[in-house]
Amino acid sequence: MNNWQFSDDFVKGVYNACVEAGIDYMEIGYKSSEKAFDRNVVGPWKFCDDKDLRRIVGNNDTPLKLSAMADIGRIDLEDIPPASESVLDMIRVACYVHQVDKAIELAHHCMDKGYETTINLMAVSKVNESDLDEALEDIAKSRIPIFYAVDSFGSMYQESMAHLIRKYKKALPGKEIGIHAHNNMQLAMSNTITSIIEGCTMLDATLLGLGRGAGNCPIEILIAFLKNPKYRLLPLLQAIQDHIHPLQKSIDWGYHIPYLVTGSMNEHPRSAMKWMDSDKKNDFVAFMKEMHDNELLE
Amino acid sequence: MNNWQFSDDFVKGVYNACVEAGIDYMEIGYKSSEKAFDRNVVGPWKFCDDKDLRRIVGNNDTPLKLSAMADIGRIDLEDIPPASESVLDMIRVACYVHQVDKAIELAHHCMDKGYETTINLMAVSKVNESDLDEALEDIAKSRIPIFYAVDSFGSMYQESMAHLIRKYKKALPGKEIGIHAHNNMQLAMSNTITSIIEGCTMLDATLLGLGRGAGNCPIEILIAFLKNPKYRLLPLLQAIQDHIHPLQKSIDWGYHIPYLVTGSMNEHPRSAMKWMDSDKKNDFVAFMKEMHDNELLE
Repeated sequence: MNNWQFSDDFVKGVYNACVEAGIDYMEIGYKSSEKAFDRNVVGPWKFCDDKDLRRIVGNNDTPLKLSAMADIGRIDLEDIPPASESVLDMIRVACYVHQVDKAIELAHHCMDKGYETTINLMAVSKVNESDLDEALEDIAKSRIPIFYAVDSFGSMYQESMAHLIRKYKKALPGKEIGIHAHNNMQLAMSNTITSIIEGCTMLDATLLGLGRGAGNCPIEILIAFLKNPKYRLLPLLQAIQDHIHPLQKSIDWGYHIPYLVTGSMNEHPRSAMKWMDSDKKNDFVAFMKEMHDNELLE
Repeated sequence: MNNWQFSDDFVKGVYNACVEAGIDYMEIGYKSSEKAFDRNVVGPWKFCDDKDLRRIVGNNDTPLKLSAMADIGRIDLEDIPPASESVLDMIRVACYVHQVDKAIELAHHCMDKGYETTINLMAVSKVNESDLDEALEDIAKSRIPIFYAVDSFGSMYQESMAHLIRKYKKALPGKEIGIHAHNNMQLAMSNTITSIIEGCTMLDATLLGLGRGAGNCPIEILIAFLKNPKYRLLPLLQAIQDHIHPLQKSIDWGYHIPYLVTGSMNEHPRSAMKWMDSDKKNDFVAFMKEMHDNELLE
């Protein structure tokens, strides 16, 4: 939502809150190539160079593990240092279904360099069954220990989510399953609960749901739900109060009607994000009409 | 949130949208005694006099039915005209568990005057099992055809909601069950879906979730979910655009951290609403500390 341009003070505040709250992993940004993005446009958290990370976390002598996300095709292998030389503990590889082989290759490379890894299959709500089954067979044969269910468009309901997690659990014996939900239909928290019930053990959530478009599962609701004494809610509320809530004045993430429209149509939120960035942002009727006209044209 | 002080233009806009969208019932306000509330403090929709209603709906020659809510103890029987003389079709009686006998008496009275009726048992998340079972026995023996599950504090999760609806269905054969959810933990839509799965057929929802505190299940998400051709989403988005969304500038309903705190503690939102009305509204940490101190003192 802000081209990864978070201030050091902001990142440090969130990092400290995660440590104090007993959170397991903090995803501190993306691992990308400087060839793919311009440092004048995107902030340092799009690259996660160790020199930038260490400015915030030192050597990270805490129980909190740090992860970064890698986008297929926007990262060179030489951009990834050996894990022994980095404060990063985990690399998560996001991919579309046609990129699963490349994702497995990149994730294996990261494992060989000493990182924990995951593969996060995006936009699964648009993938047909036989492509998905083929991808799951490849993942099952791989060494990657964690595979993520990703509701990229925020279009899934609890029944479709339960079906997906059951499918992943069955196809990937011995692997952990993760959940990454979006909040277009105010179901990110609910879909995360459903995933827990179905056996998911890696749960993505963000402070006040901060994230692209309608945002993600709010971590403060999730922690309040889990009632696990290893986690503490108060440091998270402090970070929300000091850093995240003030950001709402300048960035409109969260539930808004255009995001509902794309989510309920099982469409990528990019058109809704563009609409929300325009001076027509509050003309919900025009946006819905435009989306339906596009659908009829397809 | 505004002492029922909606303008005629606002109420007319919502009414027209409900008609055009094919909504079954519109709850247009409360039925209360003028002895219980001051017309200088609360708006006309706290009383729902037929002269005020007809200014908006005429004789309501539409398929949309109109309902009003009656609070036990704040209404006199003579305040309720015969249904044949009113544009109201349904009276819903809200009560706490210790008032169930009175609620049944009032609802029977309304039925005898020609209204459809429901009983809505509030604050059920604080009711112990034997009190609830006793209340359900009384409801089962009554003539009231519809009984509502009400998550007054927004404290219920999908598993507790499913358990409650199953209990109501089993205890009340032949009656319809309704659901009225609050959004403190962003679960109002999810709990409504769960209730549908368990057999609920009367679903409460509001435009953009407008309602006390964290608000209710947003009707635009519900209608997009149902995909029932009898309903139309566009008129609802038009009313949101014209009337409800602009109201967000002056009234802070919806998901806010203080409402999460009371919801996750299974407490009435009144302390959170008071906090949100004060100049400390953005001090989430102080509110949580105060709530926990109160809990330790109890």
